[in-house]
Amino acid sequence: MTKAKIAILGASGYTGAELIRLLLAHPHVELVALTADSKAGKSLSDVFPQFVGVNLPDLIALDAVDYTKIDIVLCALPHATTQKVVTQAFAVNPKLKIIDLSADFRIHNPEHYAKWYGHEHAALALQNEAVYGLTELYRAQVKSARLVANPGCYTTTSLLPLIPVVKAGLIDAHAIVIDAKSGVTGAGRAAKEANLFTEVSDGFHAYGVGSHRHMAELDQELSIAAGQAITPRFTPHLVPMNRGIFATIYVTLAAGNTAQDVHACLNAQYANEHFVQVLPFGGVPQTRHVRGSNQVLIGVSADRAPHHAIITCVLDNLVKGASGQAIQNMNVVMGWPEITGLEHRGMFP
Amino acid sequence: MTKAKIAILGASGYTGAELIRLLLAHPHVELVALTADSKAGKSLSDVFPQFVGVNLPDLIALDAVDYTKIDIVLCALPHATTQKVVTQAFAVNPKLKIIDLSADFRIHNPEHYAKWYGHEHAALALQNEAVYGLTELYRAQVKSARLVANPGCYTTTSLLPLIPVVKAGLIDAHAIVIDAKSGVTGAGRAAKEANLFTEVSDGFHAYGVGSHRHMAELDQELSIAAGQAITPRFTPHLVPMNRGIFATIYVTLAAGNTAQDVHACLNAQYANEHFVQVLPFGGVPQTRHVRGSNQVLIGVSADRAPHHAIITCVLDNLVKGASGQAIQNMNVVMGWPEITGLEHRGMFP
Amino acid sequence: MTKAKIAILGASGYTGAELIRLLLAHPHVELVALTADSKAGKSLSDVFPQFVGVNLPDLIALDAVDYTKIDIVLCALPHATTQKVVTQAFAVNPKLKIIDLSADFRIHNPEHYAKWYGHEHAALALQNEAVYGLTELYRAQVKSARLVANPGCYTTTSLLPLIPVVKAGLIDAHAIVIDAKSGVTGAGRAAKEANLFTEVSDGFHAYGVGSHRHMAELDQELSIAAGQAITPRFTPHLVPMNRGIFATIYVTLAAGNTAQDVHACLNAQYANEHFVQVLPFGGVPQTRHVRGSNQVLIGVSADRAPHHAIITCVLDNLVKGASGQAIQNMNVVMGWPEITGLEHRGMFP
Amino acid sequence: MTKAKIAILGASGYTGAELIRLLLAHPHVELVALTADSKAGKSLSDVFPQFVGVNLPDLIALDAVDYTKIDIVLCALPHATTQKVVTQAFAVNPKLKIIDLSADFRIHNPEHYAKWYGHEHAALALQNEAVYGLTELYRAQVKSARLVANPGCYTTTSLLPLIPVVKAGLIDAHAIVIDAKSGVTGAGRAAKEANLFTEVSDGFHAYGVGSHRHMAELDQELSIAAGQAITPRFTPHLVPMNRGIFATIYVTLAAGNTAQDVHACLNAQYANEHFVQVLPFGGVPQTRHVRGSNQVLIGVSADRAPHHAIITCVLDNLVKGASGQAIQNMNVVMGWPEITGLEHRGMFP
Repeated sequence: MTKAKIAILGASGYTGAELIRLLLAHPHVELVALTADSKAGKSLSDVFPQFVGVNLPDLIALDAVDYTKIDIVLCALPHATTQKVVTQAFAVNPKLKIIDLSADFRIHNPEHYAKWYGHEHAALALQNEAVYGLTELYRAQVKSARLVANPGCYTTTSLLPLIPVVKAGLIDAHAIVIDAKSGVTGAGRAAKEANLFTEVSDGFHAYGVGSHRHMAELDQELSIAAGQAITPRFTPHLVPMNRGIFATIYVTLAAGNTAQDVHACLNAQYANEHFVQVLPFGGVPQTRHVRGSNQVLIGVSADRAPHHAIITCVLDNLVKGASGQAIQNMNVVMGWPEITGLEHRGMFP
Repeated sequence: MTKAKIAILGASGYTGAELIRLLLAHPHVELVALTADSKAGKSLSDVFPQFVGVNLPDLIALDAVDYTKIDIVLCALPHATTQKVVTQAFAVNPKLKIIDLSADFRIHNPEHYAKWYGHEHAALALQNEAVYGLTELYRAQVKSARLVANPGCYTTTSLLPLIPVVKAGLIDAHAIVIDAKSGVTGAGRAAKEANLFTEVSDGFHAYGVGSHRHMAELDQELSIAAGQAITPRFTPHLVPMNRGIFATIYVTLAAGNTAQDVHACLNAQYANEHFVQVLPFGGVPQTRHVRGSNQVLIGVSADRAPHHAIITCVLDNLVKGASGQAIQNMNVVMGWPEITGLEHRGMFP
Repeated sequence: MTKAKIAILGASGYTGAELIRLLLAHPHVELVALTADSKAGKSLSDVFPQFVGVNLPDLIALDAVDYTKIDIVLCALPHATTQKVVTQAFAVNPKLKIIDLSADFRIHNPEHYAKWYGHEHAALALQNEAVYGLTELYRAQVKSARLVANPGCYTTTSLLPLIPVVKAGLIDAHAIVIDAKSGVTGAGRAAKEANLFTEVSDGFHAYGVGSHRHMAELDQELSIAAGQAITPRFTPHLVPMNRGIFATIYVTLAAGNTAQDVHACLNAQYANEHFVQVLPFGGVPQTRHVRGSNQVLIGVSADRAPHHAIITCVLDNLVKGASGQAIQNMNVVMGWPEITGLEHRGMFP
Repeated sequence: MTKAKIAILGASGYTGAELIRLLLAHPHVELVALTADSKAGKSLSDVFPQFVGVNLPDLIALDAVDYTKIDIVLCALPHATTQKVVTQAFAVNPKLKIIDLSADFRIHNPEHYAKWYGHEHAALALQNEAVYGLTELYRAQVKSARLVANPGCYTTTSLLPLIPVVKAGLIDAHAIVIDAKSGVTGAGRAAKEANLFTEVSDGFHAYGVGSHRHMAELDQELSIAAGQAITPRFTPHLVPMNRGIFATIYVTLAAGNTAQDVHACLNAQYANEHFVQVLPFGGVPQTRHVRGSNQVLIGVSADRAPHHAIITCVLDNLVKGASGQAIQNMNVVMGWPEITGLEHRGMFP
C-alpha cells in the first residue's frame, strides 16, 4: 500500500512532537512536511532530541508547504492562525483531509464563537462543514468528513462520561459540577513565567475560575445531549505533572436512578470501545495509568450524600486529549482500523 | 520568664518534626521530651537530619515520659492510641495542657464517632471536655481549655471559608461541594506502597471517593453553623507535592445574594486575623504561597452559572492544618500572644 | 509463525510491568505465565491498572509455572532467589531460553561474587555458562546463549561509552570517575520509608558512597577491556524523577589523545547501532529524551582542564537498563530482528 | 535600637524574595525600598503572593532609590548592571554598606574577569576594595568591609569543604573533580523555554559542560588556598527540585593521608561554626534537610579506590548560596550577632 503523505503544521510544540512520536509507529503514513515558523531550518532533533538519528524532514516555514503533494494535514497551530491556514490549504488542494487540533472549528454557533473568542470567525463555511471529532460519539460523521475539529482535552475528559448519562436522562443536566485537573503540557511550550518549573512544581492552584474558553465546547455538547441549554460549573486546575487530566464530576441523580444506573449506562455505551475502559463500580482511575496512551478510564462511585454520584475520568491530555485522538480521527477518515498506531497501553511508572 | 516544658508525643512523624521546627523559634517553651516508640534511643537527627547539631533530647519510649515534669503535651500519635495516652497523662498530671493533633477528640457525638471510626470512644469524659481547636472560630473556648482537639487539615481548609458564610445564610448549606487536593505529607511517614515516589509522582488521583473519615468533622461543624443536619459532598485527592491543601468549594447562593456578598462576609470575618488573608474579589490562591507558614489564603469568585460562586482556600497541611494550628492553640491556652513562633510567611519558591 | 510462549517471573515489579508493556507490541511472542508470589490470584490490572481490559493471564505463584510449556523465561526476581529458580527451570526444560534481569549471573569470578554478595554462588555451572548481555558489545556470544545475564542499569550506562575508549587505549583506565544519577524506579516497588514521595521529592542525595554492588560488574568489564585490573571511582545518586540514568564520566586522556579522538572512537563504534546515538561533539544528552525507549544517548566534551574529557551518557533504567535490553537480548537469542518491539523513541515531555 | 534601613535592589527575583522572607524575621532592620524595574508600581504581593497582608513598601524603579536615606543595600541585580549601580550608590552615599549577590565583584584579577565575562570590569577600584564574602573563611575581612561580594552558590558548596583540606595539604589540589547538582531556582525567574516545568521535571541533565563561569571563582579561591594555580574539573547539573545544591567532590589523598584525616580537618575547622555541620565519618547529607535554612552539611567517605576520598556537601542555593549568606555577611559587617535572623533549621519534608 502506498503510504499517505502527512504534513504536520506546528511541529515544534508538544502536540506536534506527540503526533510525530505516535506516527513513527503508524504503518500507513509518511511524514513529508513539518512546519515550525520560528524554528524553520532546524532539524527536528535540534528541537526535540528524542528524535536524534531518525530520518525525518527538517522543519520548514508554514508557507513552504506544497499542499498538492500532501494527503493529510494534522494542524497543531495556535488559535486564530488556524482558520486562515486551513482555508488556504483547502484552496490549494480541496481533497485534503485535515484534522485540526486547535479550538478554531469546534464551535458550531458563530455567535458563541465570537463571544468566547472575542472576534468573528474567519471561515464560517468551513466551520459549518467541520465535524466535531469526539470519535466514540461522532464516529459516523467523522468517517465522511474532510475537516475534523479535534476536541479539547478538558472537554474530552468531561464529555465521554457525561454525554451518555445526560442523553439517558439519568442525571439532572442543570446540576453538573466538573472539577478538572491538568498536567502542565496542556499549557504548551511557550516561555511564560507562570509555567516555569519553579512556579509550578510542589504546589497546586486553579486558574480560569468562573470562566474559561473550554466552556464553549462543554456547553455546546452537553446542550445537544440534553436537548436544552446547559451551563455546567467547571474549574480547571494545574497539577505539577507533565501529562494527564483528572476530572471529578459531581452529578445529581434524576429521580428513581442510582449511581449503579450511571455505571451500567457507561458500561453499556463503551463495552466495545478499545480506548474507553469503565472500571468496576466504585473504582477510581489515576492519570499515571494512561500516560502516553490513548486510553480513557472512567470510574463511577456512589456519593454518601443521597441522590448524588461522583464520576471520575482520566486521559492523557497529549494523546486522547490531543494528538492520539487526532490520529484516531485520521484513521476513521482514511478508513484504516481505528486503533492503528494507538494500540499501546500507558507507561507506568 | 521560666520556659514551659513541652513533651512531643510522636516526634518521628512529619507533624512531630514540624512541631520541633516551629518550636525551636518559640521564645517561651523548652522541649524536654520527644517520644517515638519504634525509634526510641536514637537521636532526633538520626531520624530527621535537619536537626543535626541542635541541642535536643534523644527520642524515648512513650511510657518513659514523666508527666509530672511537663507543662504542655503536644500529641501527634496515631488515632485510637491517643485516647488511652491522653487519659493516662491527665491521670498523672491533671494540670497538663494537651493539644491533640489526632482525630480522637474532635467528634462530640459518641455515636457519630463510633460510626466513622468503627469502635466505641474510650475516653468519653475527656471527649466531652475537649474543645474543637479551630482557633479563629473557637478562640474563647480554646482559651480556657485543658484539652484541645486540633482540627484536621482538610477540615480547616473547608471550614474557615464556609462557616461564616453558612452562619450568615448566604448560601444553600445543603448544596455544598468541596473538591479538596492535598500534598503527600498528609499521608504520614509510614512505608506504604501507595505513597512511594514512583506511585505518587507525575500523576493525580482521588481517594476515599464517596466516603472519608474527614467527613465526620465537616458534618459536625457545618451542621452546627447551619443549625440543621448538613451533609456536604466532599472528595479528597492526592497531588504530587509535599505540602499544601487546595479546596475548591462550589456553593449555591441563597436567593438575593451574590458572590460579592460572600466575599464581603469573609472579608469582615477575617479582617483582623493574622493568619487568614481574604484575597481581592476574583483572586485565586496557590498552595505554594503558604508553604511552611501558618497562613490561610481565601479567594471568592463569581461562577458564570447564575446563582453560584466558587470559594478557593489554601493552607499548609503540616502547619495551619496540623502543627502550626496546634502551636496557635497552645499560645491561646497559655495566654501568650497568639502568633508567637508563627510570624513567618510562606517559603516560595 | 507460531508465537513463542513467554513466562515473566516477577511480574508485579516495575521491570515486570515494563516487560509486559513492551511485549504487548511484540509480534512474535505470547505472554502465557505471569508470576507474583505475594499477589498470586490477582489480575494483572489489579496490580497495574494501565493494563485494565487487556487480555492477559492472571498472576500465579512462582511454583505454578509449567516450564515444559514455555519457550522463553524473562526473570525479574530479586537477587539470590534467582539462582535457585533458574536452576530448577532448566532442570525441567533444558531447552528454555532465559534472560535474567537480576545480578545473579553477571559476575564471572565466584570469589568476586562471594565478596560483593556475601555468600557463595549457588549455581556455578550456570554462572559459567551465562553470557553477559551487554548486547552491542557481546552480540555474538548472546546469539548462541541459553542463559543471558542482563546487565545492570548503572553498568550499561557506564560501559557503553567506556569500553570502546578503554579498549582503544585513549584514556587512562586507572583514572576513571563515574558520577551516576538514577531515577527512583531503580529502587523497585518495595514499600520502604526511604523511597516515599515525601523522602525523595524536591531534593537530591548520594547513596552507597564509596562502595556499591554495581561496582562488581563495572570492575569486571572494565578490567576485561583494559586487560588489567581496573577500579573505577563510582558514586550513585537518587534524582526525584521516575526513570532515567545520567552518567557524568570524567576521564584523563592518554598521552597524545584528545577529546575529539574519544568522540571519533565512539562514533565509529556505534555508527550502525540502532539503539546508541552519539551526539555531535560537545552535545550533552538529557534523560527525558530517552524516557520509555531503548535508546542510549552519548555526549563527549572537552574539559577546560588540559588532558581531560567529560563523557555523558543517558538511558532509561527500566528499558535499556533492564526490560528493553532484556527484550533486545531475547530477540538476538531467538534470531529475530534485534529491534523488534523496541522501535519507538522517547516520550518527551 | 534604631533599625537599619535597607534597600533591596532586584526584589522581584527569587533571591530578592528570599531576602525579604528572611529579613521579616530580623529584629534590627527595616525594609524601606524594594526595586524591580519591569514591575515598578506593583505591590510586592502582586509579584510574590506569600507576602499578602504584610506591611511593605511597593516596588519602585531602581533610580527612584534615595541612597541618602539607606544604611544597607542588598543588591540582587543581574551581572554587569551591578557594577554601575554600586558605583552610583557609593557616589551618593559613601557610608553605605553594600552586600552584592551578583558575580560582579567576586573576581580579584581584572584579566580573569574579562576572560570569563567577555568585557572589561567597569568599577575596578571598587572591585579592588570588595571583600569575598565566604563568611566562615573570610570573617575578619568581612567585618571591616564596605562592599561584600557574596559568593556564588556552586562555589560556596565547593569551597567550604575544599579550602581547609587544600590548605592543610591533605589532597592533591591538581586532581579535584567537583560534580555539582542544583535545583532550578538557581536559574532565576526569567521566562525561558529551558526552565519550563515541562522541560525540567522528571529528568536530569548537565549544562555548561567543560566550561562554566562559576569556575572563575573556584579557580581563584582554590589557587589562593593551594598557593599555586589550580584548575579543578567541575560540571554543573540541573535537578528537578526547587532548591538545593549537592556537590560530590572526588579527591586524591596526598601521600600518607587518609579519608579520616580529611574528616578530622573539616571537623576541626568547623567545630564552632553555627552554619556548618560536619556529619560523622561516612555520613552523606541530603539537600532536603537544609531546605530554607542557612545550614551547610558536609560528609566525608573513604573511596574503595585506594588513596581517594569522596566529600559531599549540601546547602540551599537561595539561602547559604545567596540570600542567607548575604544576611550573614550583613550581620558581620554591622556588628550584629552573626546568626541573627538565620537561626532556623531546614524545612523537611
